[in-house]
Amino acid sequence: MQLLEERIRRDGKVRDGNILKVDSFLNHQMDVKLFGQMAQEFYRLFHDESVSKVLTIEASGIGMACFVGQAFDCPVIFAKKTKTKNIAGDVYTAMVESFTHGGTYDIIVAKEFLNSSDRVLIIDDFLANGSALSGLSTIIKEAGATSVGAGIAIEKAFQHGGDTLRAQGLRIESLAKIASMENGKINFC
Amino acid sequence: MQLLEERIRRDGKVRDGNILKVDSFLNHQMDVKLFGQMAQEFYRLFHDESVSKVLTIEASGIGMACFVGQAFDCPVIFAKKTKTKNIAGDVYTAMVESFTHGGTYDIIVAKEFLNSSDRVLIIDDFLANGSALSGLSTIIKEAGATSVGAGIAIEKAFQHGGDTLRAQGLRIESLAKIASMENGKINFC
Repeated sequence: MQLLEERIRRDGKVRDGNILKVDSFLNHQMDVKLFGQMAQEFYRLFHDESVSKVLTIEASGIGMACFVGQAFDCPVIFAKKTKTKNIAGDVYTAMVESFTHGGTYDIIVAKEFLNSSDRVLIIDDFLANGSALSGLSTIIKEAGATSVGAGIAIEKAFQHGGDTLRAQGLRIESLAKIASMENGKINFC
Repeated sequence: MQLLEERIRRDGKVRDGNILKVDSFLNHQMDVKLFGQMAQEFYRLFHDESVSKVLTIEASGIGMACFVGQAFDCPVIFAKKTKTKNIAGDVYTAMVESFTHGGTYDIIVAKEFLNSSDRVLIIDDFLANGSALSGLSTIIKEAGATSVGAGIAIEKAFQHGGDTLRAQGLRIESLAKIASMENGKINFC
């Protein structure tokens, strides 16, 4: 999506450790007009998939996911991050490794909000090692629901999480795919 | 706002310790159509305030705040929760006490996203003891910006955080104000 690539070129900042800072428009301050345009693009890509639920993960996926839910006229669920194992049995759970902060955490979704008739579109801001996306896919499988695919704002293609998940059969549509970020210069695929 | 009160009556669940669960439409699964309607109501209430930024706090305020930002055609910022004191000097920070989980945490907003010319509308899903709202107000003051007020989905009026902050001069507009939740029955003001 040219609009997003241009924005990343203009306002993105490359930091040590392959960190791309886009917090002026994507994940701290949010350009909601851009979010609306990205949601329209995801609608164009997935509109024939009979999406019944949009699933994202807190916190930075929520804003974009809400506009996607508006486009598909369906509820949006955000998986919650938790450090305490939930043993109540009323949630689906999966483990996620954090690329940005290191370590692992669990994500949970209440069972009552996902069921076997759901056709779920995953939305997230970043795809790097693919751990969050893999965790969300696990939760959809646990629920017996169908994953129609994932809509990602920015994929760091050089970290190959997307390759692995595509090889497992997950449809992934990334609006901007970064091939490399060497010496502070961002190259798109 | 009658629509929200009816929804709370229908789908809200009262739990021990004055906890109101609204996670089927507000803060886990999200009814984005309702969010759009709530955003229109906040626009009606604050449209003459020349709002330049919407400020919320992760995670459950983000969805609603994004639609409010769309209504006002301005950027939305979410304050990030952190447990590590940021000493870089490039963020505004405030301490917040958690009503739901106990304990305290810091919230931060990067200095580059708030400045003295900003007129800021705070948006959050809940107002109980007022600690989050107070923290967000502190950050606006630190930035030298103007707070035009706060738009809240659900105020637990019996916990009096709203009273205290209104007495300090903050304009607060709550779309649903709960007077009591005794024996599982929700009474609105």
